[in-house]
Amino acid sequence: MTLLLAFDILLSGVRLSLICAVIGLGCAFFLITVILRSSPGNERMRQISGAIQEGAKAYLNRQVMTISMIAVVIFLLLFFFKDHPTAFGFLLGAFCSLAAGYIGMRIAVLANARVTQAATEARTRALRVAFNGGAVTGLLVVGLALLAVGIFYHFARDMVGPDMAVRSLVGLALGASLISVFARLGGGIYTKAADVGADLVGKIEAGLEEDDPRNPATIADNVGDNVGDCAGMAADVFETYAVSLIGAILVGVLTAANAPAAIVYPFVLGGISVLGAICGILFVNFGSGKPASVLMGAVGMSALVSAILFWPATHQLFPNGVEIAGKMRSPTDLYYASLIGLIMTGVVVVITNYYTSMRYRPVQKIARASETGHATNIIAGLAVGQHATALPVGFIGIAILLSYNFAGLYGIAVAVMSMLSMAGIIISLDAFGPITDNAGGIAVMSNLGKEVRAATDELDAVGNTMKAVTKGYAIASAGLAALVLFGSYVEELKAHIGQTFNFQFSLTEPKVIIGLFIGGLLPFIFTAFSMDAVGKAAGAVVREVRRQLQAHPGILRGEETPEYGRCVDIVTKAALREMIVPALLPLAFVILVAVIPQLGPVVLGGVLVGTIVTGLFVAIAMTSSGGAWDNAKKFIEEGNYGGKGSPAHAAAVTGDTVGDPYKDTAGPAINPMIKVVNIVAILIIPIFF
Amino acid sequence: MTLLLAFDILLSGVRLSLICAVIGLGCAFFLITVILRSSPGNERMRQISGAIQEGAKAYLNRQVMTISMIAVVIFLLLFFFKDHPTAFGFLLGAFCSLAAGYIGMRIAVLANARVTQAATEARTRALRVAFNGGAVTGLLVVGLALLAVGIFYHFARDMVGPDMAVRSLVGLALGASLISVFARLGGGIYTKAADVGADLVGKIEAGLEEDDPRNPATIADNVGDNVGDCAGMAADVFETYAVSLIGAILVGVLTAANAPAAIVYPFVLGGISVLGAICGILFVNFGSGKPASVLMGAVGMSALVSAILFWPATHQLFPNGVEIAGKMRSPTDLYYASLIGLIMTGVVVVITNYYTSMRYRPVQKIARASETGHATNIIAGLAVGQHATALPVGFIGIAILLSYNFAGLYGIAVAVMSMLSMAGIIISLDAFGPITDNAGGIAVMSNLGKEVRAATDELDAVGNTMKAVTKGYAIASAGLAALVLFGSYVEELKAHIGQTFNFQFSLTEPKVIIGLFIGGLLPFIFTAFSMDAVGKAAGAVVREVRRQLQAHPGILRGEETPEYGRCVDIVTKAALREMIVPALLPLAFVILVAVIPQLGPVVLGGVLVGTIVTGLFVAIAMTSSGGAWDNAKKFIEEGNYGGKGSPAHAAAVTGDTVGDPYKDTAGPAINPMIKVVNIVAILIIPIFF
Repeated sequence: MTLLLAFDILLSGVRLSLICAVIGLGCAFFLITVILRSSPGNERMRQISGAIQEGAKAYLNRQVMTISMIAVVIFLLLFFFKDHPTAFGFLLGAFCSLAAGYIGMRIAVLANARVTQAATEARTRALRVAFNGGAVTGLLVVGLALLAVGIFYHFARDMVGPDMAVRSLVGLALGASLISVFARLGGGIYTKAADVGADLVGKIEAGLEEDDPRNPATIADNVGDNVGDCAGMAADVFETYAVSLIGAILVGVLTAANAPAAIVYPFVLGGISVLGAICGILFVNFGSGKPASVLMGAVGMSALVSAILFWPATHQLFPNGVEIAGKMRSPTDLYYASLIGLIMTGVVVVITNYYTSMRYRPVQKIARASETGHATNIIAGLAVGQHATALPVGFIGIAILLSYNFAGLYGIAVAVMSMLSMAGIIISLDAFGPITDNAGGIAVMSNLGKEVRAATDELDAVGNTMKAVTKGYAIASAGLAALVLFGSYVEELKAHIGQTFNFQFSLTEPKVIIGLFIGGLLPFIFTAFSMDAVGKAAGAVVREVRRQLQAHPGILRGEETPEYGRCVDIVTKAALREMIVPALLPLAFVILVAVIPQLGPVVLGGVLVGTIVTGLFVAIAMTSSGGAWDNAKKFIEEGNYGGKGSPAHAAAVTGDTVGDPYKDTAGPAINPMIKVVNIVAILIIPIFF
Repeated sequence: MTLLLAFDILLSGVRLSLICAVIGLGCAFFLITVILRSSPGNERMRQISGAIQEGAKAYLNRQVMTISMIAVVIFLLLFFFKDHPTAFGFLLGAFCSLAAGYIGMRIAVLANARVTQAATEARTRALRVAFNGGAVTGLLVVGLALLAVGIFYHFARDMVGPDMAVRSLVGLALGASLISVFARLGGGIYTKAADVGADLVGKIEAGLEEDDPRNPATIADNVGDNVGDCAGMAADVFETYAVSLIGAILVGVLTAANAPAAIVYPFVLGGISVLGAICGILFVNFGSGKPASVLMGAVGMSALVSAILFWPATHQLFPNGVEIAGKMRSPTDLYYASLIGLIMTGVVVVITNYYTSMRYRPVQKIARASETGHATNIIAGLAVGQHATALPVGFIGIAILLSYNFAGLYGIAVAVMSMLSMAGIIISLDAFGPITDNAGGIAVMSNLGKEVRAATDELDAVGNTMKAVTKGYAIASAGLAALVLFGSYVEELKAHIGQTFNFQFSLTEPKVIIGLFIGGLLPFIFTAFSMDAVGKAAGAVVREVRRQLQAHPGILRGEETPEYGRCVDIVTKAALREMIVPALLPLAFVILVAVIPQLGPVVLGGVLVGTIVTGLFVAIAMTSSGGAWDNAKKFIEEGNYGGKGSPAHAAAVTGDTVGDPYKDTAGPAINPMIKVVNIVAILIIPIFF
């Protein structure tokens, strides 16, 4: 009787969340038709947008090719050395992660010119078109993740039984994570190499404005916004979402045995939040006000709807509470854990906004420091990034403490999943950034009127803040998700070794300290390699732009059209070549530690935690510095400290350029990296230990 | 009988090392007379040197006043809330740390003009005078540390018994560490505020050369070299030395009970190495060759002498081995552990040299990146700093693994102590840096001939490399020493709580993770505050220099003498004011964690390790980036990539300026900070837990 009831809950819960996922995907496709119905503007605008589309498609196709080859190798390794369900899970995870990035980016490049066109009509319309473009990606990411995990789990359970099904989900997580490391790195290197290359020769040497059509790298620059901020971010958050969901299921299985509701609960949180995200999207499409407040209102609306719906859902699933780690937890305990995730989203957004928005002290301090030159701008920016780590990490600590008190490791997993359930609306905001950025570029390149540019500039500024804010969210959630994975690593290790398990991951054990050192090292050299990669790829762009300007002097006079395609081609090849080494670094670290007999499982445990700890700090510091430098430059461009063209502005441009690889390549690539490390560790337990 | 024999060993071992310490101090005083006998140059040189001496004395007197007030408060707190021996230990440690810095710096400012004068005669003579000036500090530091710890232990044992005597040594460690945080920070802020201030207005705005006497901040700049690099470094390494010695004694007592030889062994290692250092000093004074090779030869000579003498000493002390942590260890095991410390010194020196010397790829890469502007110079420098963390941390891991295998935690303590025993010769090299730097300044300011400047420039370049290399040594040894302290924290906690002790510092415990996060945060915000402090103090200098140049236009025409004293005065006040907040930060962190009931001893354990892990990375990255930027600038000034005055050079100057607070303020101040955190934790165990 109880078993039947339990099975019923299981089915209806998962079914409910899959229905929500399908509703979300339906909304996404409806939004696509809405976007496609709006006018893509005049011929010149369509031309430029077409060039960006072509470049983006060309890059992503190549990226898919490169990553597919690596994915096939790993698939075969898993197929022959691990087990078939894990291998197929890997394939599915990799496919969905790529698909989320791919489709999201396709929509973004279709939306950009339409936003410019809408800006010629009304600002509110432009805001809505841009936001809807982003919302497609947001809904796609969460819908795809829920469907992929849900359906795969269903089939796998029928075919290999529930235990094996849960374990093979780790394969799906690996597929999503690994692809997302590549997408983040490849896209990040592409976007910043193109940006730095376009700026160094175009702006500084030839004295051109941003987005001047005479700059041979300008199309590559606009393509970069899409492949980096849009496709990269979508793959990244898809991965965090899927991994959090899978991590929560794993922890549910391992710590709340005999309680199927604990496995279903993460699904339900995800499903409900799709409805929350849709309410947020409606809020933007029917609300009015300043762009920034409308967007923040949408986030608040989503969180509120989710918070309200979580209450009955939690009580429905756990009418009598549930026993976790030997202690009974009431449904209210679990509900509170889920609230912590929602609150954390808000807290991280507010904190990141403080450190990167030009309305507050940190950014203004950098702007003021620019008056005394390049060096003081850099020092101030680096200091702001380091200061910015304090509050997020403090709140993460509090969140861990509280959610652990509510329901042990499972409580942390629930909080993480609920934080990630906000991904639908948060990605909508993030993808809004590259779309408005492109829209501004198209307005400049097609010589549209001043008021249109003012409109796109306003949206672009909002988009910049949104990009910075969502990065904070992506990192904080990635850190928490990785902690859940580390918990799973230990539980898996226990389950694998069985009764003879007597590992102490104690700080008094030198092996743990050594592990912490090795793991702590990873984010430092991972980001160092990433920055080197940007430097090398940017060098290739610089050489090509210089060559074109020298060989065709007509370009600068506006008489010849530059060969945009060659720049796109060069940066594509360079980015894909340069992403390989840093992307394989975390894999190599974990496998080496596992293989060397003097190290082994205890050192590996230290490695996982060490990577999370320093990774969190390095990622927050880098993305915050980058965002703050960017806006300090904008603050000066608004006329402060001498405005555009002043020495302070030159110093601020230096800071912005340093910040580019910080905030768009190295920093955000840490998110998937710390999870790859943890997932690979879980996967190799039965192989090496 | 055995007890009598044991007591005999104890006495003779400690006596031997105290005799060595006295020999070392005797040599130091002999060297002082040698230096004072050499000519201080012509009147102009004596004038300039006098101004530097006066400024340095004025700063140090004020610093002593400020720090003394804080020290008195802490002394009273310890006296009334802890116990009297600990309070007096604190006072002694604080006094010796200050004295080491003070005397060392006094000698350095007496030596500078004498080096310039010697350079007019023969390069070898100049090298020897400068090195002997540094050697005084080196011998003082190790001699004072051995005497202070040895004599205090002797008296305290007679008065309060052996157990309490060992415990009150922690007070001595706290005194040394806390004072050293202040000295490092105060000196670091002073030197870089004066440097940045002098450069920003003097070099960039008024177009003056380095050390131009028309620059009102030039004397302050030269004073800064002494108070930062010389006094700060001496206090820092004195502290690491004393703390390692005390840590090793503590670990000896706690893990090798009933083996008095284990307590004496660290003393003996320290004493023997004084003889090694003296051999190294003789090598420089009687050897010949290129400056860099002579100095490196001296290090090799010291290490060799120590390695040879350690062998009989170890066998004499442990004829039948010793039982540590329940396992018998042979004298050869302990000898190997001591060798690891010597080898680590060499390894760290070689690695740091690779990343910061202009003869190798990393620095040349930064120089090449300067061609494309300020931003690429900065990105390349930051990346080099991060890459530079890999090898030192890897070798630290290997050293921990090996020495732990030889003799448990005591083996690590022995390795650390043996690494620190090299401090005598290593500080000689380090203090060589500011002396040659000043000597060059005096040569420029007194308009000496070209060949004299060439000689002082050559020594200055060697001094720069030595400064960078010794920073790597200081950090690596500080990290290892802090790990030993963490081990003592756990053992103390066990001893304090007794049989009910059941704390697990396991990574699976959320409290440990939270502790790692809080501790990991500390180096990030500590360095952020330090860099802010440099910025604020530099701003004060900039304003003063601008004011003088405007009010007295005759200064730039060389008709009026600038008011050097006002600049010295302003930067003195600013540095002492700005050092307070960052210096008290680690204390506040530890006490808060201990006081908040939800956190407590387990979280605190995580905090200690977290601080060590991220502290090590941040410190290595910062000092390596700084050293590399500095030498990239010098590499360009040698005529590469356009040489002095080229755009590449302007970019390299930016990098050098960013690197200044990195390598001379924030980075090195982490060394004493991570130890303060650990020592305070040990001290407050009986108060809060």
